[in-house]
Amino acid sequence: MLQNDLILRTLRGEQTERTPVWMMRQAGRYLPQYMVLREKYGFFERCQTPELACEITIQPVDIVGVDAAILFSDILVVPQAMGLEVQLVESQGPYLPDPVKNFKDLVRVRVPDVQETLGYVFEAIKLIKKELNGRVPLIGFAGAPWTLLCYMVQGKGSKTFDQAKVFCYTQPELAHQLLQMITDTTIAYLKAQVKAGADIVQIFDSWGGLLSPDDFETYSLQYIRQIVAALKEEVPTIIFAKGAWHSLEEMAATGAQGLGIDWCIKPQLARQIAGNNVTLQGNFDPAKLLSPIPVIKKEVETMLAAFGPGRHIANLGHGIIPNVPVDHARAFVDTVKEYRHK
Amino acid sequence: MLQNDLILRTLRGEQTERTPVWMMRQAGRYLPQYMVLREKYGFFERCQTPELACEITIQPVDIVGVDAAILFSDILVVPQAMGLEVQLVESQGPYLPDPVKNFKDLVRVRVPDVQETLGYVFEAIKLIKKELNGRVPLIGFAGAPWTLLCYMVQGKGSKTFDQAKVFCYTQPELAHQLLQMITDTTIAYLKAQVKAGADIVQIFDSWGGLLSPDDFETYSLQYIRQIVAALKEEVPTIIFAKGAWHSLEEMAATGAQGLGIDWCIKPQLARQIAGNNVTLQGNFDPAKLLSPIPVIKKEVETMLAAFGPGRHIANLGHGIIPNVPVDHARAFVDTVKEYRHK
Repeated sequence: MLQNDLILRTLRGEQTERTPVWMMRQAGRYLPQYMVLREKYGFFERCQTPELACEITIQPVDIVGVDAAILFSDILVVPQAMGLEVQLVESQGPYLPDPVKNFKDLVRVRVPDVQETLGYVFEAIKLIKKELNGRVPLIGFAGAPWTLLCYMVQGKGSKTFDQAKVFCYTQPELAHQLLQMITDTTIAYLKAQVKAGADIVQIFDSWGGLLSPDDFETYSLQYIRQIVAALKEEVPTIIFAKGAWHSLEEMAATGAQGLGIDWCIKPQLARQIAGNNVTLQGNFDPAKLLSPIPVIKKEVETMLAAFGPGRHIANLGHGIIPNVPVDHARAFVDTVKEYRHK
Repeated sequence: MLQNDLILRTLRGEQTERTPVWMMRQAGRYLPQYMVLREKYGFFERCQTPELACEITIQPVDIVGVDAAILFSDILVVPQAMGLEVQLVESQGPYLPDPVKNFKDLVRVRVPDVQETLGYVFEAIKLIKKELNGRVPLIGFAGAPWTLLCYMVQGKGSKTFDQAKVFCYTQPELAHQLLQMITDTTIAYLKAQVKAGADIVQIFDSWGGLLSPDDFETYSLQYIRQIVAALKEEVPTIIFAKGAWHSLEEMAATGAQGLGIDWCIKPQLARQIAGNNVTLQGNFDPAKLLSPIPVIKKEVETMLAAFGPGRHIANLGHGIIPNVPVDHARAFVDTVKEYRHK
């Protein structure tokens, strides 16, 4: 049914004719066509209007030729569905005016009916699948429970999320209660994404790298493990825990088919730690897309050679930067498509 | 001459009766006595007035009983001495209104006479040494060239320092010229700190962890190596490149006597990578100092056991957080002092 199933075959560990490629935040601000819609509609309006989410999701497939579409949405729609107010101020990041601080704040948080609260996401997915018409697979996603807790407790972005950590270290029972509620919501949310048509799901643990290896297991990985297990019979899952290189072995052991890595770990070392039964995804430094095109090509080839053939999905090590010229993004994608392993 | 030379002996690899301890940013906002001076004097006034810098430097020795004092100053006094305007807005971080962007900006940057531009630092060191009167060693410091370039190019703090990276990736010759100028200034600056009385110097590469392993070698480590080599015959050096766990082996090979690590790498793994001929420093998660005191004690003991006896200086994995109660900081220090390895 899918005309291009390179990523799915790569996630299953099959040999493919070339390395597949997509870019985190590929549906975003570096695309002039996206900026037109961003001028006209608010952030949540774009997320909640299936036609807009669909158009934005498909833009990079048409414009830069990636091998997968990823749903245009935000990880914070889940805390929103769970009962917290979430504001997204353009260029400033998220703001939650009433974050969770103590036990009494938990009464405001619930495990919602996802069809009722997040139905617009599933509508968008159905529309996207129809419009994609089998050209490439669609990746659904959710934030990891730890990363969502970071925002639900801190109330806004942070370099270190100290308040979120202190919440966990001083009120561990409360933290685990909240993490379990997020996990239960996320499982229902991702299952419904799959039911609506998502071919793959990715779990973004953007702040996993702020935790020590032991705390990562305690506050993040044990919940990710539940999500991966719940999705096991449905579609392949990819875990991207930025900076959590120290737990690649444990993440591989969850049974996830893919692991995202950033540019701070060499592909060979990541492979050595993660073992041979998982597909690695990454790990180009997004800032390098602002280099001259010949430099991009050379560096992408170096990256591809380092990963070697098979079990690799080319991607950035984090989201694409807004001021990347479109032809630089295209150079990244084209270099991967043209590359053949020796 | 020094009554407490535990840290110096530990850096030389000698057996000591217990693990020494200090805390990054120990002269800082968690201390009410510091806040009194912060209310009265501007940031650079505190740095540039030897009596104030001296008083602030010695506060944590008196109040929490650490095994070393560290000069109260800021890494950005070096870009300032090199000709760039640096503003430090309290609670907001640094701001450089005219950052380096291209070749013509380099005419504004010079390798200064450090006695002329940074003489106040050396005066402060002389005064501190006199007031310390041999109680504990004094640690001098400087920012690593890469971290200083980050600020000199980006002009302010950033999560990712993309502009600084793009500067390096698009104008590498210019970047290397600037990095060499910073290196030359830093060598002169640290040598003068030692001449004034610093017993140890630490190089802070706060943003080293943003670079890939290859770029860390290219834009950071080759310059740190020059600094360590220049200081070799003078005093022990400690490199703290936050997040650059991937290059611990290469950092150990510079000949530095100490390597700082953060809490994202387990002590055993850090030891395995760095080898046995270097002292490790760290690696308590600063946010954990906001846990209840019994939890702090337990976690500090776990950390000490993980490092094992010898070749370890107990410290945080990053600077102490402003809202840590003083008795929590003292619990950290006291637990280290009371601990005996089995």
